[in-house]
Amino acid sequence: MVKVAIIYYSSTGTNYKMANWAKDAAEKEGAEVKLVKVPELAPMAAIESNPAWKAHYEATQDVPEATMDDLDWADAIIWSIPTRFGNVPGQVKQYIDQAGGLWAQGKLVNKVVSAMSSAQNPHGGQEATVLALYKTMFHWGAIVAAPGYTDPVTFESGGNPYGTSATVDGEGNIQENKLDEAIANQAKRTVTIAKAITASN
Amino acid sequence: MVKVAIIYYSSTGTNYKMANWAKDAAEKEGAEVKLVKVPELAPMAAIESNPAWKAHYEATQDVPEATMDDLDWADAIIWSIPTRFGNVPGQVKQYIDQAGGLWAQGKLVNKVVSAMSSAQNPHGGQEATVLALYKTMFHWGAIVAAPGYTDPVTFESGGNPYGTSATVDGEGNIQENKLDEAIANQAKRTVTIAKAITASN
Amino acid sequence: MVKVAIIYYSSTGTNYKMANWAKDAAEKEGAEVKLVKVPELAPMAAIESNPAWKAHYEATQDVPEATMDDLDWADAIIWSIPTRFGNVPGQVKQYIDQAGGLWAQGKLVNKVVSAMSSAQNPHGGQEATVLALYKTMFHWGAIVAAPGYTDPVTFESGGNPYGTSATVDGEGNIQENKLDEAIANQAKRTVTIAKAITASN
Amino acid sequence: MVKVAIIYYSSTGTNYKMANWAKDAAEKEGAEVKLVKVPELAPMAAIESNPAWKAHYEATQDVPEATMDDLDWADAIIWSIPTRFGNVPGQVKQYIDQAGGLWAQGKLVNKVVSAMSSAQNPHGGQEATVLALYKTMFHWGAIVAAPGYTDPVTFESGGNPYGTSATVDGEGNIQENKLDEAIANQAKRTVTIAKAITASN
Repeated sequence: MVKVAIIYYSSTGTNYKMANWAKDAAEKEGAEVKLVKVPELAPMAAIESNPAWKAHYEATQDVPEATMDDLDWADAIIWSIPTRFGNVPGQVKQYIDQAGGLWAQGKLVNKVVSAMSSAQNPHGGQEATVLALYKTMFHWGAIVAAPGYTDPVTFESGGNPYGTSATVDGEGNIQENKLDEAIANQAKRTVTIAKAITASN
Repeated sequence: MVKVAIIYYSSTGTNYKMANWAKDAAEKEGAEVKLVKVPELAPMAAIESNPAWKAHYEATQDVPEATMDDLDWADAIIWSIPTRFGNVPGQVKQYIDQAGGLWAQGKLVNKVVSAMSSAQNPHGGQEATVLALYKTMFHWGAIVAAPGYTDPVTFESGGNPYGTSATVDGEGNIQENKLDEAIANQAKRTVTIAKAITASN
Repeated sequence: MVKVAIIYYSSTGTNYKMANWAKDAAEKEGAEVKLVKVPELAPMAAIESNPAWKAHYEATQDVPEATMDDLDWADAIIWSIPTRFGNVPGQVKQYIDQAGGLWAQGKLVNKVVSAMSSAQNPHGGQEATVLALYKTMFHWGAIVAAPGYTDPVTFESGGNPYGTSATVDGEGNIQENKLDEAIANQAKRTVTIAKAITASN
Repeated sequence: MVKVAIIYYSSTGTNYKMANWAKDAAEKEGAEVKLVKVPELAPMAAIESNPAWKAHYEATQDVPEATMDDLDWADAIIWSIPTRFGNVPGQVKQYIDQAGGLWAQGKLVNKVVSAMSSAQNPHGGQEATVLALYKTMFHWGAIVAAPGYTDPVTFESGGNPYGTSATVDGEGNIQENKLDEAIANQAKRTVTIAKAITASN
């Protein structure tokens, strides 16, 4: 059974929603899934200054925090992260940087990986953020399986061939059509490739 | 008077339209503008197989082709290019590669540069293509002045903070609102910064 | 038997040498290998103005030119290309852009891919060029298997975790130690992953 | 007088050394310089587990920590950062992410920026890290003035045209020749362009 870690960071909920769509699709493909959140670095004062952030923070108190063990455990990783100035959020980079020990032991090699992103503009850094994450994955020796245009739904949901992406308006509404289907396709693809890789070991 | 080369490649007309919006805005700022097209590499058979491409090809026969002299002449360059698989078109790269001689003589240094892009999807490589071009501009010693969010119109037209970008549907219609205004803002910014740089020489 | 296309562009021979090291390693892993060169776009006058370029051009007259059929045929692709201003050469981009037809038919999906690069400086665009190519590969729905640090030889040969890279001095001498071993490791990894992917179909 | 913030992160001292070379050169150009360190996020246990990190940590206790006011104050910013898995360190990204307030007020616009990096391999992510930072700078509306090959010393010190870069061996020794001169050239260029931009306001 393929083990999939779905690792997300979300302040107001979009990437949590996307992570859950990926979880449903990965489980449907027979994967064992852990959905975990990247530890928060922002002070409570910042969180509380934004009602939507505070509400989401409280609503997800019971979601386990991502650990190094999750990276070690996983055959595949699906990341769901917002863009922060065209790159991964500080929280995500800080989490990733802690994997130096696993990396030095070669324990991150051959993870099958894909990523998803969100921003407030259609061209708001979604491409840049996914590509930034993949660069790091190459350092790990991961196998990157972006969705590309392997299914028409990627086109119908506005791209992104690097990783399914959301555009979120001021009220938190996702603008893309069929984003759930595009995410399901991406998650299925990640699981399928991870099955091939694990079967060959 | 600041000299601006607006260099575009366009098969069916979107990037030509965008280039002209940039031209109008740059001239309004008092710049001397040359609008030039990147030489075509595709065989006529390919062009003729696509009626929209053929029509645009014929309609722009009188637009001068970009030369190395245009790069040498310019104080500022504004690029308008479509994405091809997340990178600049082969035509554009081939044109750029010919600048090795100018580069070796240091004649490309301190050009003030920005770029625009288009694709068929909102997240169809627009970010990736502009960023790929800027990488090359760094090799040239250019000064890159992306629009960022220096004016609210960038947000209203859907980003892209790296360079104003269009999403074009199957009939060639631009999906973004106020794209002309966003391009005008970008062109104005490029000219303004080029004025500062040339004034200091 | 896994089918591997090793596609290179080389003006003075470094990337041809690297491509051949990859070929030897891939064949040792039992792959069926085609080594093909990207068609030249430069005029003969340019080639003849550089004795090293001319000599290499003539020495490789019998190497088959890369076609679209090679992309269709391959289970895996290993690219060996120099950097030109931090991006793939115009020749390579022009070749890639012709794959629009295969792409539209979904025939580029699940190719296992890795890339190598060279430049005249240790930090001369080697990273940037490999990453630019991988962006395009994501559009194709390829599976990108960079070497990472999956073997100590990548570190010993100076990186590059994205794809093995050469630094070439003015006389064409490769500066890295054990570059052949690093390339062999990368080629072996590409073949191994391609075996897993093809076995699962 | 042009105000330059030199913002660095360093665990064992290389990027601190590079930052100081930049400081000397910027002051020589008549700039007012603040050299500040990005706040540390690692726990003391991690720092103390590495003698070189601990020694550097203690030796730089009196260097002021970078604040949001430094970003607001500066006309130009020179970054000096190590690569962590091909991207900026978590510490740096976390610092950057806190600039959302300044960004929303347009206070980051037209900062003249360049960056430097270091890694343990010649192709160890130095290019990727500088380019990742520039992407973020575009979101800010900064003006990016990479060194390019504007002076022969960039070539002599091994590139990097995106931003001067060090390769550091296991004992902390910088491998490049003339790295101090290349950094001086980059800092001078950043100051010169910042003078032009501030003079035009």
